Amino acid sequence: MKKESSLKVAPTFRLVGILGGMGPAATVDLMQKVIDATPATRDQEHVPLIVWNVPQIHDRVAAIQDSNAPSPAPEMCRGAIALTRAGVEAIAIACNTAHFWAGEIEAALQETGVPLIHIADTALAQLAHEGRTMLLATEGTIQSGIYSSRAAKLGLELQIPDSAMQQAINQGIADIKRNNIPVAQKLLAPYLQSAQAAGVTTFLLGCTELPLAIRGTPFEAKSLDATETLARAIVAFSRGLLTK
Amino acid sequence: MKKESSLKVAPTFRLVGILGGMGPAATVDLMQKVIDATPATRDQEHVPLIVWNVPQIHDRVAAIQDSNAPSPAPEMCRGAIALTRAGVEAIAIACNTAHFWAGEIEAALQETGVPLIHIADTALAQLAHEGRTMLLATEGTIQSGIYSSRAAKLGLELQIPDSAMQQAINQGIADIKRNNIPVAQKLLAPYLQSAQAAGVTTFLLGCTELPLAIRGTPFEAKSLDATETLARAIVAFSRGLLTK
Repeated sequence: MKKESSLKVAPTFRLVGILGGMGPAATVDLMQKVIDATPATRDQEHVPLIVWNVPQIHDRVAAIQDSNAPSPAPEMCRGAIALTRAGVEAIAIACNTAHFWAGEIEAALQETGVPLIHIADTALAQLAHEGRTMLLATEGTIQSGIYSSRAAKLGLELQIPDSAMQQAINQGIADIKRNNIPVAQKLLAPYLQSAQAAGVTTFLLGCTELPLAIRGTPFEAKSLDATETLARAIVAFSRGLLTK
Repeated sequence: MKKESSLKVAPTFRLVGILGGMGPAATVDLMQKVIDATPATRDQEHVPLIVWNVPQIHDRVAAIQDSNAPSPAPEMCRGAIALTRAGVEAIAIACNTAHFWAGEIEAALQETGVPLIHIADTALAQLAHEGRTMLLATEGTIQSGIYSSRAAKLGLELQIPDSAMQQAINQGIADIKRNNIPVAQKLLAPYLQSAQAAGVTTFLLGCTELPLAIRGTPFEAKSLDATETLARAIVAFSRGLLTK
């Protein structure tokens, strides 16, 4: 370290790529959470990111639900490869549902040696080992097993909402997208209370919208925002605290 | 248009590069304003952006104030060239002060044919031609003539705050950076009122922080946020409404 000039600009941060645009608001949400998770006192101590925020990509929900619908995977792989060409040392995806194609992206990245920081891995790593966790997410995320398959490998079991609660969550997410946050809070509260009464100790928030309805409520302290765990992992990787 | 398959993903949006990281919060602010300025009903109708959010770059204020301090221009040019290699068709800088080096960036881009969408140009183009405009910004932005030199070319005169008002603005910006927005509002209000009493009809907000202190006050309707004008220009360029 002695040889470094004081003018040298923080050479020790690794460049991280964000595959975003699915949608742009979720991309901005992840970037803001990376800023919030960074112990910086000046600009130069923030994490360097290159962000591929290109929303011209086939619909993810349609592609999961209908095997005849076009896959967004080729466009996602194109973005991931473009990020590696620009010099990133790891890639994160700013969308829970898009992790459905994580395997295809990892395969495309294999030659480059650039790892994918997977949101389910970062969330599950930060879950308390005791207690019972319920995954709150879109039906697409839950049905596609993005979280449950990786949880199973760790010997963790994730509860999922019953059909009535899932319908309320779907409606709540739609309300939040329309910026009706108090409506969503009121709708979700009795379901969250019932889940707690039935023994759930932690709500794993596996979608971008739900944290907005949980913030400032009594459920916040019992929740883990998957995007925040991804943001913390990006910061740790960039600062060299997380190995590839 | 008839030949396009309904599955084809919005081919008519131009890819825009954002040179950010100066700092990351200003970058997120511009991205959010691009989202807000976009008439989209679904993800695919949002503007495609590649964002170079790399804060490991020499201090801009120090470089303007001290000719012996290292220049951030080489790093900015490196980011701009990397964005063009990734395919962007225009570049915008997410920082008022960094426009001090706009000429160097334009020179670096000349070979590529990729234009810089300059924040002073977008702001001045959206100013009413009648009335008197006062530029509210950091001392660095004002002294370096980023706005005034381009205004002069258009035959527009920008008023600047007197020394006491500029000191209040400096303090207000520092308060906003510390999230003390009501304190900044209270500090700035009498100066803004005096300026209006002296004939100022529009406040041109040429820094990222000041819009946060103006929002929701009676001065909002009399203000033009330069970042919003840049965001609107990015959207217009991407949608093909603005020529290169």
